[in-house]
Amino acid sequence: MADAFTLRPIGKVVRNDHAVLQIDVPYRPALAHLADFSHVVVLWWVSGHDDPQSREIMQCELPYAPGFEAGVFACRSEYRPNPIGVTVCPILDVDEAEGRVTVADIDAFDGTPLLDLKPYIGVTDRVREIIQPPWFDDWPQWLPDEGLGL
Amino acid sequence: MADAFTLRPIGKVVRNDHAVLQIDVPYRPALAHLADFSHVVVLWWVSGHDDPQSREIMQCELPYAPGFEAGVFACRSEYRPNPIGVTVCPILDVDEAEGRVTVADIDAFDGTPLLDLKPYIGVTDRVREIIQPPWFDDWPQWLPDEGLGL
Repeated sequence: MADAFTLRPIGKVVRNDHAVLQIDVPYRPALAHLADFSHVVVLWWVSGHDDPQSREIMQCELPYAPGFEAGVFACRSEYRPNPIGVTVCPILDVDEAEGRVTVADIDAFDGTPLLDLKPYIGVTDRVREIIQPPWFDDWPQWLPDEGLGL
Repeated sequence: MADAFTLRPIGKVVRNDHAVLQIDVPYRPALAHLADFSHVVVLWWVSGHDDPQSREIMQCELPYAPGFEAGVFACRSEYRPNPIGVTVCPILDVDEAEGRVTVADIDAFDGTPLLDLKPYIGVTDRVREIIQPPWFDDWPQWLPDEGLGL
C-alpha cells in the first residue's frame, strides 16, 4: 500500500453575504447537474490544523459534553490524522459558468480549500433510524434548513 | 493557498465473511466511543483511480441513467479530481484493542486504504426532506439496513 496520497484544492470557501463554494476554472464542468439536488456533501481541508502536532491527537474533549473525552474517529473534531472536514450543505444556487455554488451555510472559515463535492443521495447518505450518544438529545435530530455554520 | 496536501492511510478495508475497517495501531485510540453510534461515515482512497488521467475526468455517464451524463461533482463516480470515497456504514461491532470496526458493508474493494472515520450524527448528516433527480425514484430513499456494498 502506498504510504502517502496527494490532494489538490478544487476551489475555496468564500464567505460574504452568503457562503459560496468558489470552484476553480478547470473543475467547473464537474458541476453539471449538481443543481438537480437539494443538498451537497462538501469535503474541505482543515488548513488550520494541517501540522504534525494536530495530526497526532487521537482523543479530545467534547465541547458539547464537558468533561467527556472521545476518540477523534468518534467526534467531528478539527484535529484528525487526515484533516478533512465533511459538511452537508443545503444548495441555494449553482452557477456553473462562474463556478459558484451558493449554500445556506458551512462550518468552514473564509478561504478554506475545497477538496470535493458530492450530491447528497437518499440511498447512500440518509439514515432513517440512528443511535447516537445522549449528549445529542437536546440537539436537532436532523440537519436544519439553514445548514450548519461556524 | 497551498497547492497540495498530503494524506496517510489510517488502515485498510478487509473483506472476508464481513466487511472490516482494520485500523493501524497508532490510530486505535481514536476509536474510543465510536461504538456509541449506530453508523459511521467512512472516508477511503479510491486507489484504483489515483492517476492523472482519472483525475482529469470532469463528466461521466451515469450507469443508473443510461445515456445521461453529469459532472463528477453531481455523481458518486470513482473518477474525481481528488479520489476520495465517502460511505455511510451501519456499525456491527467496534474492537478498539484490535482496531477492528465491523460494518454491514462498504462499496470498497479489499485492501482499500482508509483515510478517516467520523460518527454519523443527526444534526450534521441526516436530512429529513431532499430533492434528487428522477433516476433515483426507483431506488430506496434511505440507506438500507444492510448498508451499501460493491
